[in-house]
Amino acid sequence: MPTSSPKAIILLSGGVDSTTLLALAKHQGFDVYTLSFAYNQCNSTELTYAKRASELFGAIQHLCIPIQFHNWGHSTLVQSPRSSSHYTPEVNTYVPARNTIFLSYALAWAEILQSNHIFIGVNALDYTDYPDCRPSFISAFEQLARVATEAGVKKDRQIEIHAPLIEMEKAAIIQLGLSLGVDFSQTQSCYQPNPQHIACGQCDSCKIRLAGFAQLKMQDPIAYQT
Amino acid sequence: MPTSSPKAIILLSGGVDSTTLLALAKHQGFDVYTLSFAYNQCNSTELTYAKRASELFGAIQHLCIPIQFHNWGHSTLVQSPRSSSHYTPEVNTYVPARNTIFLSYALAWAEILQSNHIFIGVNALDYTDYPDCRPSFISAFEQLARVATEAGVKKDRQIEIHAPLIEMEKAAIIQLGLSLGVDFSQTQSCYQPNPQHIACGQCDSCKIRLAGFAQLKMQDPIAYQT
Repeated sequence: MPTSSPKAIILLSGGVDSTTLLALAKHQGFDVYTLSFAYNQCNSTELTYAKRASELFGAIQHLCIPIQFHNWGHSTLVQSPRSSSHYTPEVNTYVPARNTIFLSYALAWAEILQSNHIFIGVNALDYTDYPDCRPSFISAFEQLARVATEAGVKKDRQIEIHAPLIEMEKAAIIQLGLSLGVDFSQTQSCYQPNPQHIACGQCDSCKIRLAGFAQLKMQDPIAYQT
Repeated sequence: MPTSSPKAIILLSGGVDSTTLLALAKHQGFDVYTLSFAYNQCNSTELTYAKRASELFGAIQHLCIPIQFHNWGHSTLVQSPRSSSHYTPEVNTYVPARNTIFLSYALAWAEILQSNHIFIGVNALDYTDYPDCRPSFISAFEQLARVATEAGVKKDRQIEIHAPLIEMEKAAIIQLGLSLGVDFSQTQSCYQPNPQHIACGQCDSCKIRLAGFAQLKMQDPIAYQT
């Protein structure tokens, strides 16, 4: 029997936020299609987690798109992995126009699947320095999506960009994820895990994650380099 | 002596419109950086023309970005080349969210180069069926660009999306190109040239191009299959 659930594209990196986002979309009754990107970032192990989460939450399809970003910018996230596994606080983790590119691909897939719903796990509180994590950015992309597509022009459906975590603190996201059955031992947040895929515990992403668990008086279930 | 010209990113396919666009941006005094995409389209020869035009018009850099689009949509332009070199009028040449994805990459490059100017050769008259060729789309992307980037947020510069051909008919574009020194024998417009790179003369793109030259009572300088 064919399903009548609406389809949603979920941007999924395999970290705390996007895995919780996937669980939430599933809980809200969407048929979920997960979309990850393999750009030349240091943390390529996150794709394993994204794939696993897609299976766990019954994604109908998980698509991974290679993005050539090497040598484009000065962001540490898109450069070749460095020999040292230690994070230096001076690195710039902002990737130019990253969420714009990610949402553009999601929009293409939404149009192909005839889906009206794109979920993105941006978080304005933890990432105040990232312009493409703010409500004004999400709203502007939604406006764009409505004029950029055949569907939008025909006015028979309106694409919605869902960013339900945008005003949430990390602890609240973890709590939401736990209530929705997310197993955070199967998520990865570190910008620069070591070759054995163990999180560094030092980068901004690790620190924010650890602080979130600490606020809940919980132990983060993943291992960290000592 | 360092140049003080502003930098512009030019989306360049190597056809009539984008080659004229490149010539125009150069004429307007910009330092030009050309951006092409290698997605799995039938007409891959256009990239040769894009590269050549970049050299001819003194582009400081020509970047070609591979885009994996295979099997995403139902557009003929992104499917594998068919065995027949003949165009069938039933094909759908609309590629989902194509210009949104192209402009997103251009925005990333603009941010890296600290450029405020992106040129796109969209044409609303010839491509009335394409939502992402309309003024409302260009305007929406410009709004997005201004909230999506560090530069936009800092308010120290505002990205402009230039679409100077948007209201022009093909004949007028050809005339403009000629006045700016474009050699149209070095451009390619066909959706499905044969293995010898000869244009079909039958597809919409060939027809529009041929009609443009005919309106000017000129011979299109490229060869067509007989």
